[in-house]
Amino acid sequence: MTASRGVITLSHGSGGKATHNLVESVFLPAFSNEALSRLGDAAVLDVGGELLAFTTDSFVVSPLFFGGGCLGDLAVNGTINDLAACGAQPLALSAGFVIEEGFPIADLERIVGAMSKAARAAGVPIVTGDTKVVERGKGDGCFVNTSGIGIVGPLASGLDASSAKPGDVVLVSGPIGDHGTAVLLARDDLGISADVVSDTAPLHGLVAALLASLGPDVHVLRDATRGGVATVLNEIASASKVAVRLDESAVPVRPQVVGVCELLGIDPLYVACEGRMVVVVAGERAEDALGTMRSSQSGSESAVIGEVEEQPAGFLLESTSFGGSRVVDMLVGDPLPRIC
Amino acid sequence: MTASRGVITLSHGSGGKATHNLVESVFLPAFSNEALSRLGDAAVLDVGGELLAFTTDSFVVSPLFFGGGCLGDLAVNGTINDLAACGAQPLALSAGFVIEEGFPIADLERIVGAMSKAARAAGVPIVTGDTKVVERGKGDGCFVNTSGIGIVGPLASGLDASSAKPGDVVLVSGPIGDHGTAVLLARDDLGISADVVSDTAPLHGLVAALLASLGPDVHVLRDATRGGVATVLNEIASASKVAVRLDESAVPVRPQVVGVCELLGIDPLYVACEGRMVVVVAGERAEDALGTMRSSQSGSESAVIGEVEEQPAGFLLESTSFGGSRVVDMLVGDPLPRIC
Repeated sequence: MTASRGVITLSHGSGGKATHNLVESVFLPAFSNEALSRLGDAAVLDVGGELLAFTTDSFVVSPLFFGGGCLGDLAVNGTINDLAACGAQPLALSAGFVIEEGFPIADLERIVGAMSKAARAAGVPIVTGDTKVVERGKGDGCFVNTSGIGIVGPLASGLDASSAKPGDVVLVSGPIGDHGTAVLLARDDLGISADVVSDTAPLHGLVAALLASLGPDVHVLRDATRGGVATVLNEIASASKVAVRLDESAVPVRPQVVGVCELLGIDPLYVACEGRMVVVVAGERAEDALGTMRSSQSGSESAVIGEVEEQPAGFLLESTSFGGSRVVDMLVGDPLPRIC
Repeated sequence: MTASRGVITLSHGSGGKATHNLVESVFLPAFSNEALSRLGDAAVLDVGGELLAFTTDSFVVSPLFFGGGCLGDLAVNGTINDLAACGAQPLALSAGFVIEEGFPIADLERIVGAMSKAARAAGVPIVTGDTKVVERGKGDGCFVNTSGIGIVGPLASGLDASSAKPGDVVLVSGPIGDHGTAVLLARDDLGISADVVSDTAPLHGLVAALLASLGPDVHVLRDATRGGVATVLNEIASASKVAVRLDESAVPVRPQVVGVCELLGIDPLYVACEGRMVVVVAGERAEDALGTMRSSQSGSESAVIGEVEEQPAGFLLESTSFGGSRVVDMLVGDPLPRIC
């Protein structure tokens, strides 16, 4: 394969097509095992009769501090949400730091403080950690890896990216693209200012409420981070061998986010969220799902955004307000590197 | 505190005194919880009646490839050994990559191949992963975080750095300092050549054999990585409020390692191992422990290296071949940055 003779590009970290290709050409062949090849947000293992979810995520967001959050809360909430997306209630997190020589300890304290606050707010302790330091110029301030474990209850047993069925409806737990836009705005080089803050938030409470209320009628959960809602829905369409049809006018996006994305020529459907769950439920439970999600602290602006159809299998389509329809592909390239 | 107004230095990543100060001044106050404050190599949590060990480690070794190993096997064996050091049998690992733009995919394949081989050799699958990419000049080739989970059996319940008692003996599972020396030699800037390869190896088999044979007579297990055997034994002396007395002539060190360390003015007691367990057992079981360890694949050169005494509590002493005795402090500063 030509790719394997090449070099790593920023696109390989986008969460979109290049990331998928790298995972399929390099990681899966080497590490092949059943838990990994399911490619969920977390692996699920049987531990003494309990189903244990296990996940890892490295955070390299730049800049480290942005409107509404920082590296610290992002790392805690991101890993909690990977656990939540497989229906697990988080049990504990780890924190591994790679810090560049010369990094101000005051900034480290801010990041660690934000992690601590986010962990307490979510009720999930950080139980183990590690710190490495690299020479000046060999890192970028601070990177954090958070791994997490959680318990998958019986109500979550059917959840899988391949479980979407024709007739299902698709919901999202709030306006999309806030996080990616807030990080972009925090980069000095853009010279744009707008009132947008990151949506970083833990979603395990919303997931627990959904599962308690709808049980097996919840078919798929995915948090829409790198690659945004469009990439997540492409993955679901592909894994479930169904078409997902989005209603453009139903997708919640804040006007400020629309404005910034228009200036930059980016579609908000590809912009990362860090506190938004994409939810697929049985069609007849759409109202129940919406009501439950809106009652949850982090889901008050939830919306039904589309439905699942039989054909064309594997595709995400968007119905436009003009009555037309377009194919929305998975993210190609990376217009927004280091968003998380 | 003055330290908190300062900046991160390479010493903060050494595993020695500066790391301890950082953990105690920044991380512990923020993350305080019982599992973390035990500061073992892994946290131990009760999951449905099973004791689950959970650990994390980021690897930033430079160079990425060295005699006897590379970043990949180091990351797998290192996390397995953190689990083994709390008496856990490893269940699964995660792998989180932070890769610098422009990194050759062929090198990534070598690293991933080494991880795969090490994971298979140890019988521990890599079940979940993550890849992030940073711009050229914002990383250093490739960093890997491996987190791991394992099951702590009933035989390991008494293991703790605070469990060493006067009359106990101290063993090490093989010659010390090979790993750190091999990495130093792989750095072009030294211009020294010697026949030393890393001792990177998984130690959970050796630990399982020890626990099966000696049960609760095994009091402490610690793998001697950053900061070397001297730092680990200082931690044990301090946690157990005992003195540890090393017999200089009994500590196994390969002559090539002694030679390189003499050239560089480093004491091998501070040089990292990546496949060496420090073991403290009840005095009357010394011979059983030695026999069991020597029968294990990675422990054939095990040795009794010292004993535990009542006074002076908290200190590591070394009896020299001239009949004298010196205090061996924890590692101060970092003569060997980025060794793992």
